[in-house]
Amino acid sequence: MAKSTVLLGGLAVISRAVLATSNFPDCTSDPLANNSVCDTSLDAVSRANALVSILTTAEKINATISASPGVPRLGLPAYQWWSEGLHGVAKSPGVSFSSDNDSDFSSATSFPQPITLGATFDDDLVHAVASVVSTEARAFSNVGRAGLDFWTPNINPFRDPRWGRGQETPGEDPFHLSSYVKALISGLEGTGDVEGNKDGSYKKVVSTCKHFAGYDMESWNGNFRYQFDASISTQDLVEYYLPSFQACARDAKVGAFMCSYNAVNGVPTCADSWLLNDVLREHWNWTGGSSDGFWVTSDCDAVQNVFLPHQWAPTREAAAAAALKAGTDLNCGTYYSRHLQGAYDQGLINDTDLDTSLTRLYSSLVKLGYFDPADSQPYRSLGWESVNTPEAQQLAYTAAVEGTVLLKNNNTLPLDLKGKTVAVLGDWAAATTQMQGNYYGTAPYLHSPLYAVQQLLGNDSVFYSSGPGYGDPTTNDWDTIWEAADAADIILYFSGIDDSTESEGLDRVSIDWTGAQLDAIGELAMLGKPMAVVQFGGGSLDSSPIVNNAGVGALLWAGYPGQDGGVAIIDVVTGKHAPAGRLPLTQYPANYIAAVPMTDMALRPDASSGFPGRTYRWYEGDAVFGFGYGLHYTSFAAEISLPGSVTSFDISSLTSNCTEAYLDLCPFASVPVSITNTGETTSDYSALLFLKGQFGPEPYPLKTLISYGRVHNITSSTTAQTTLNVTLGSLSRVDENGNRVLYPGSYGFILDVEPGLASLNFTLTGDAVTLDEWPAPPANSTGSPSPEVPDGYFVGGYGSVDDAGGQLPLGS
Amino acid sequence: MAKSTVLLGGLAVISRAVLATSNFPDCTSDPLANNSVCDTSLDAVSRANALVSILTTAEKINATISASPGVPRLGLPAYQWWSEGLHGVAKSPGVSFSSDNDSDFSSATSFPQPITLGATFDDDLVHAVASVVSTEARAFSNVGRAGLDFWTPNINPFRDPRWGRGQETPGEDPFHLSSYVKALISGLEGTGDVEGNKDGSYKKVVSTCKHFAGYDMESWNGNFRYQFDASISTQDLVEYYLPSFQACARDAKVGAFMCSYNAVNGVPTCADSWLLNDVLREHWNWTGGSSDGFWVTSDCDAVQNVFLPHQWAPTREAAAAAALKAGTDLNCGTYYSRHLQGAYDQGLINDTDLDTSLTRLYSSLVKLGYFDPADSQPYRSLGWESVNTPEAQQLAYTAAVEGTVLLKNNNTLPLDLKGKTVAVLGDWAAATTQMQGNYYGTAPYLHSPLYAVQQLLGNDSVFYSSGPGYGDPTTNDWDTIWEAADAADIILYFSGIDDSTESEGLDRVSIDWTGAQLDAIGELAMLGKPMAVVQFGGGSLDSSPIVNNAGVGALLWAGYPGQDGGVAIIDVVTGKHAPAGRLPLTQYPANYIAAVPMTDMALRPDASSGFPGRTYRWYEGDAVFGFGYGLHYTSFAAEISLPGSVTSFDISSLTSNCTEAYLDLCPFASVPVSITNTGETTSDYSALLFLKGQFGPEPYPLKTLISYGRVHNITSSTTAQTTLNVTLGSLSRVDENGNRVLYPGSYGFILDVEPGLASLNFTLTGDAVTLDEWPAPPANSTGSPSPEVPDGYFVGGYGSVDDAGGQLPLGS
Repeated sequence: MAKSTVLLGGLAVISRAVLATSNFPDCTSDPLANNSVCDTSLDAVSRANALVSILTTAEKINATISASPGVPRLGLPAYQWWSEGLHGVAKSPGVSFSSDNDSDFSSATSFPQPITLGATFDDDLVHAVASVVSTEARAFSNVGRAGLDFWTPNINPFRDPRWGRGQETPGEDPFHLSSYVKALISGLEGTGDVEGNKDGSYKKVVSTCKHFAGYDMESWNGNFRYQFDASISTQDLVEYYLPSFQACARDAKVGAFMCSYNAVNGVPTCADSWLLNDVLREHWNWTGGSSDGFWVTSDCDAVQNVFLPHQWAPTREAAAAAALKAGTDLNCGTYYSRHLQGAYDQGLINDTDLDTSLTRLYSSLVKLGYFDPADSQPYRSLGWESVNTPEAQQLAYTAAVEGTVLLKNNNTLPLDLKGKTVAVLGDWAAATTQMQGNYYGTAPYLHSPLYAVQQLLGNDSVFYSSGPGYGDPTTNDWDTIWEAADAADIILYFSGIDDSTESEGLDRVSIDWTGAQLDAIGELAMLGKPMAVVQFGGGSLDSSPIVNNAGVGALLWAGYPGQDGGVAIIDVVTGKHAPAGRLPLTQYPANYIAAVPMTDMALRPDASSGFPGRTYRWYEGDAVFGFGYGLHYTSFAAEISLPGSVTSFDISSLTSNCTEAYLDLCPFASVPVSITNTGETTSDYSALLFLKGQFGPEPYPLKTLISYGRVHNITSSTTAQTTLNVTLGSLSRVDENGNRVLYPGSYGFILDVEPGLASLNFTLTGDAVTLDEWPAPPANSTGSPSPEVPDGYFVGGYGSVDDAGGQLPLGS
Repeated sequence: MAKSTVLLGGLAVISRAVLATSNFPDCTSDPLANNSVCDTSLDAVSRANALVSILTTAEKINATISASPGVPRLGLPAYQWWSEGLHGVAKSPGVSFSSDNDSDFSSATSFPQPITLGATFDDDLVHAVASVVSTEARAFSNVGRAGLDFWTPNINPFRDPRWGRGQETPGEDPFHLSSYVKALISGLEGTGDVEGNKDGSYKKVVSTCKHFAGYDMESWNGNFRYQFDASISTQDLVEYYLPSFQACARDAKVGAFMCSYNAVNGVPTCADSWLLNDVLREHWNWTGGSSDGFWVTSDCDAVQNVFLPHQWAPTREAAAAAALKAGTDLNCGTYYSRHLQGAYDQGLINDTDLDTSLTRLYSSLVKLGYFDPADSQPYRSLGWESVNTPEAQQLAYTAAVEGTVLLKNNNTLPLDLKGKTVAVLGDWAAATTQMQGNYYGTAPYLHSPLYAVQQLLGNDSVFYSSGPGYGDPTTNDWDTIWEAADAADIILYFSGIDDSTESEGLDRVSIDWTGAQLDAIGELAMLGKPMAVVQFGGGSLDSSPIVNNAGVGALLWAGYPGQDGGVAIIDVVTGKHAPAGRLPLTQYPANYIAAVPMTDMALRPDASSGFPGRTYRWYEGDAVFGFGYGLHYTSFAAEISLPGSVTSFDISSLTSNCTEAYLDLCPFASVPVSITNTGETTSDYSALLFLKGQFGPEPYPLKTLISYGRVHNITSSTTAQTTLNVTLGSLSRVDENGNRVLYPGSYGFILDVEPGLASLNFTLTGDAVTLDEWPAPPANSTGSPSPEVPDGYFVGGYGSVDDAGGQLPLGS
């Protein structure tokens, strides 16, 4: 190493520089030109094998990390596997925006956060959004400003209202997540949506379903994601924590997975061969009978965590070897590159282990066209003109409109602002990057609510104050609130929570609005002016004080609405568009969390401990607003039916007539829905179909979402038709062993949240049929690779590190 | 109000602008020229009364807030009461630094945080630091860049190792805090230290002891400072939570107090007449028989909190009235200016209430010379030449040297770096503002450890990497660590915690080093090179893995060392100066916090609940490092004695011979201490005298600090003499009713931490004597002003706000 003063981040800088100058392999020169990896006539695995076969062991080990240095002697460039694109191309090690605001690739479309996309209950829209993200990602990649692998989506269910990263997910319901993620992945990985790729032979980008599995807590009461061991029953695992990942792997055939920081039932997930091999690769048949093109990366650096703080492996080498052999092909970090050679020397891994992972990784790149001539691929021609298109910008706006949820309306909305003066208040009123949440890129613009009202009325009719905010309780700046409110005809207050209290690494400790917020809202409400509150942020907030205050005419929920969020919300406020979003998560009362340790992974209530249960399926208390809640500017009536009005079904007939590869995917019925707009205002309607009934193992869930779809622009006094497809899987239950079973019993459908717009009942008869038999984990699955090693054995580490350190005895 | 778009922060901007142009009252023109407030021959109260008497009620109400608008018709300018100066003139509403780095008043001396000043155990140094702060503050004030009132010190005891603001205090011990704060206040308020003010008739600045009382938690497990009700026994209150405030009020006669966000035993402190009047003003005789010049401000905005979230007062007006009548003279915030008129109209307050507070406030300004001709005052001539003097810069350096504590040394330190290459690692290695902690201003320079090593060796011999840090666990940047460590002869690692995990509003949830830190330290230690770790941050960290690792040769503690911290530490590392600081707080093992809810205010252990007790006086477990711990580069021997070698004392003689106004201040003995440097290295020695014994109410504390002093530069084989004064108060105990009593019994002195360098025993005989009789709180002290009002009564607020919201049932 040459002597130099500052080495900070040197590797990342180097790899980016390489990407920018020669970001694709040189298949035109030797030695690669004569290697089969460049032979486009061969299959992906053969091509990847050919490359791997000419690598030295040291080169293989170097290739197992996210900032892969490449192999200069072969003309194989460095490759950064870590790009982000949660809701638009996002700043990350693999992505670089131009810092010159006027130049190409200085921005990318920034859509609403997934929690707001989830509130749209519009999978077509989700697919369209994902397609734009991958188009823009490819354009960035083509100029060396992005990789081809994007570590999105975060598809862990939003289990606890405090989770700092719940905003990254579409919500709390596993069926909703599964449906959403299939639409998303097909958009991201793109088959058939670009001219010249009709056969889908090229992947657009590779998407990465994360964080597999049981990851949904950052830091709670001394429990950290890096060392948390989630204790999850098999029933809850299959029923709640894994369906979205099954949808990714088995149904959407996503290109990559990410294992998580936490352990599940004693085993850090990145070292869990049962989870990564038995469940993911075998039971879910992820690789579809082939071994190519599907790989697992560790979270950053979840391999290091296997050593410390998990203390699951006795040495650094053992930790790295355990992860590789369990099926973690790539290490976000440098633990593999530093410790796999030692593991190799100790005989803990061999070349076959390395070859297996590298073949998965390189065959994935082959499918992305990485080794193919540019002119043979449709995506390689995408450029800056494909970024921030008018259509993309319109879609970002539409997504924010569709994701807005109306929670309270005492004949206040829509508001005609014309000719009026408006007080625009609150710490979200002039939001910029706040609207993007996290994992965002540079947006072409960020239109705040303040901007939107000013555009509508001109600056002179708008009075702005940033107070009161969520954080600082001081009233020093409150005079500006009263001045603005006194001067205006109408009061709009924009607040809630934001990334300062919910973010990566930061869970919330309260789901209350603050005393200062409630004090100010209460005093504003006493002015007797038309007043609406807009609630932002991903996590649950107890808005009952606002609901109960007659002086507050309306309450809207907006999540994190993205680059055009302010305009979208104001257009809903003024009635340019009618709200039809639905809450994608339960809004619990403030004292809910007092009875619920965040570390308790159970879903079902437990009367003996006072645990009230989680999510709308199990929570027995009175929610402030339930999952799926959302009002309209109009009224609807609806009818649903079963084809032929059949009310009894024989289970064996249902299963034996099915031609699907998996019984749970067999159709039960396509349910026709007629929706009539019985009011005056044109409006979308989000049709949510819930299942109720008493069948299968007790306790029974209160209800379960089994199908949904969004119907657009239903005009006054007209009736729209749609169809909601229901599978056998949706009717099934999961038993204590994780088996998915279709049970005889009495079933009911109800359209919409209680009291519902329509309902019907039917029965299933005959014997129960197992739709999916779950592979049980090995009995000794919690054992570390060297269980015989005594306490205090951590080599080169610390025998005295205290397992109990920082953990309060609250968790179950 | 004129229509304008943006009102944000308007008031603050206006008041600063006024300050800059005419920051003192116009006593040369009518009407003030003819008001007695400008008559320098009168006493301060008479002058203040004269001003108050010509104010309208509306003007009085406007004058009760921190951003006082002044009275333009009288030539009384706006005045910002809120300036900060915790460890140097600090950015705050009342302070503005020039943004031009080359211009006057662009910076001020930035001393170490109080936690590091506390570690010096050098009150003369603390006084000197405070004198520089007030000199620089006055210089800023004279050009309209600061007020005359500084809201420092934070003198709450550092009760819990997690407290985010513990860094702002000198530590956990009430005697230490009391001694420290007297030295500090005399330096800040300055009597006799400027030519021309020998009689102390002018105050230099007014200091504010905060946060009165029981405030030492930001946010723990859903308990927030704004709504927390601290349940504190009378015994603990008098023995632990209040001594430092008694020292401020009764002994140092500090000019101002700040009441806190929290409630104590049911009453928000800013509305607690017993605390603010019975205890502070009467029992502690704060005002010294006069009613002038001593005032209480609310924290920002602790008056609002009385309404929400405390819900202690039924209306906003009642909350404001209760605070004013309880003795909260000034409102940081705008709650008084908005709601006292309503309270006045409702008859909840009258002009006498307002006049009382305003007289206190204005007579304080009179004592600062605010209404006097500039040429009659010594401090009004201070200018930019008095800021950042070479002496001040040397003092900042010395303070950092003296505050460095040596915790482990296996013959590794001091290190001769000459001719060597050094790896400078860790997220504190290149620290800038990190070294200032919080409440800081712009420093003239910020010299990091990296800077110091580079200055010493030249850049080519220094290899730097910022990893591994406290926050991000990813190993992506770790290659730079290994490259630097491999290239160097010597490894210095600078890390710990910082304001990202401990700060205002943010308590910690773990007192562990992270798994990533321990992993990297462990691997570095395996290299077999000389290696030292420097631990930064205020709160406790369990460093036992570092202590137990033989590959780490030395461990230093540095807290937050200020502008020259890096140079100071490296000079200790190299032996230019020998370390003699002592830990000002207990370093608990990592699992300590698992057994200690932060909301539990008790000090004494409770075997029945497993509560292990707090601070070195009561904690019965094995600390990683105890309070007062600190190693040296040399060895010491010491002798102590009692004058005349008397070993028995009659209590009645001790008390009857005393001429002090307060019996607890009566001298017991001046203890001569002889300290011999028995090693080779010149070194300071911090003499800590502890009391042990069994007397007074059970349980007995393990030991108690009763005197200390720092002896400087003791050369090899020489003996230095010093004297440690002990008062009767230091020998006393506090009973369950809060009375301070001198008990008969067997007493022991021990010099230094166990096993001690010297000790002696003696007895007190005769009857116990009460040194101070505590004024009991009223029996109904927890009652709100309208206890008959039923639930759900919050006017204009929310009857449904849930008191239990966000509070887990952990607290006792």
